[in-house]
Amino acid sequence: MPINPNAAIEITAYRWVPPFAQGLVRDLRARWALEEAGLDYKVRLLDVQAKPADYVKEQPFEQVPCLSDGTVHIFESGAIVQYIGEKSEAILPREPEARYRAIQWTYAALNSVEPAVQNRVLLDAFYADQEWAKLRKPSADEFARLKLKRVSDWLGDKLYLEGDRFTIGDLMMITVLRLGDKAGLLDATPNLAAYVQRGQHRPAFQQALSDQLAAFAANEPQPEGAAA
Amino acid sequence: MPINPNAAIEITAYRWVPPFAQGLVRDLRARWALEEAGLDYKVRLLDVQAKPADYVKEQPFEQVPCLSDGTVHIFESGAIVQYIGEKSEAILPREPEARYRAIQWTYAALNSVEPAVQNRVLLDAFYADQEWAKLRKPSADEFARLKLKRVSDWLGDKLYLEGDRFTIGDLMMITVLRLGDKAGLLDATPNLAAYVQRGQHRPAFQQALSDQLAAFAANEPQPEGAAA
Repeated sequence: MPINPNAAIEITAYRWVPPFAQGLVRDLRARWALEEAGLDYKVRLLDVQAKPADYVKEQPFEQVPCLSDGTVHIFESGAIVQYIGEKSEAILPREPEARYRAIQWTYAALNSVEPAVQNRVLLDAFYADQEWAKLRKPSADEFARLKLKRVSDWLGDKLYLEGDRFTIGDLMMITVLRLGDKAGLLDATPNLAAYVQRGQHRPAFQQALSDQLAAFAANEPQPEGAAA
Repeated sequence: MPINPNAAIEITAYRWVPPFAQGLVRDLRARWALEEAGLDYKVRLLDVQAKPADYVKEQPFEQVPCLSDGTVHIFESGAIVQYIGEKSEAILPREPEARYRAIQWTYAALNSVEPAVQNRVLLDAFYADQEWAKLRKPSADEFARLKLKRVSDWLGDKLYLEGDRFTIGDLMMITVLRLGDKAGLLDATPNLAAYVQRGQHRPAFQQALSDQLAAFAANEPQPEGAAA
């Protein structure tokens, strides 16, 4: 779907982030879900270093994304993706059995897998020069790989977590696994690496990623003195 | 509600855990939600150190709780609490605006708050003798307190996160904050400490906690040689 300034749904994203974070900011999850659901949306861009003073009243942690749709105003990418899923059976089945399996995997991605992956990834990204991070790395690496092995064992040779059907659970899990993939954590679980590729090849993912990156490219800070 | 061996809903919990974990195992969340919703349930108890070999097919991370209700079989406490909420307006409002605010806070508790609190709490609980944990503690403490301050600022003098009405979002947030409370992390945010007390004084919480602890008391391992 093209981004549509007249759309009912608005998501909040960042105008620009440094290259290491581009393609990883969590509005990607909302954009991906909206593309899968075939819903158009508009985007409100915030300066990551200069958010509006009252933004904390919308998002207490001052992060992105938020979603507004008429009278619904929510934050947390998990809740947003689920909200979008409820508008489209394409990513959230209607039958209770399958519906709750999808929701379960959304929570699993965010609570059983992401914290372990993030704890490992942030050691290199933010704390590489700190002594504790060097000492911590082996056990953090082992714990992240243990969690990933559990997901890998579950996935087996299935296309998606619950079989052939892609759901919001896969969407969320794949965005979490991408973090691990960039840090080399999927080298022992080729089925998870292939699963991430499968997700990333979906046209909806491609469109979402391209739209996030396009905003960053359009708002690239100019070197001092380059402005006319 | 009394635990009812003939109930349709079954949750999976542990037969016994060491004292430091008693009252914290996550089936408490499911039990609390079931009590708030006025739904009876039965309990399947597993040995934490000797789970059935095929349990991994139900719960890929081999944790508790799971929930079964007819043809619905799910894990992840967040998904379980939400599933129970959908059966009872008492903890999950029906109007989309309020419904999604509650779901949003459930995700926020599990993804924006719990990882920071857990990273701090586990330093003392599991890694106290490790050099990296000693070096890490100040920054982990600061980060956990920063997240808690955000929740405290949001809560202000409200009874619950969205006002006067208790929802699954409060249920989940309070179970996360209890972890921090036990580690002394709420000493700078008296409104959060009071919020945790408010949650813990609810009759449904009391019943849920009492039922979890009753199972542990009934299954306390006997010292070697004490068996007849």
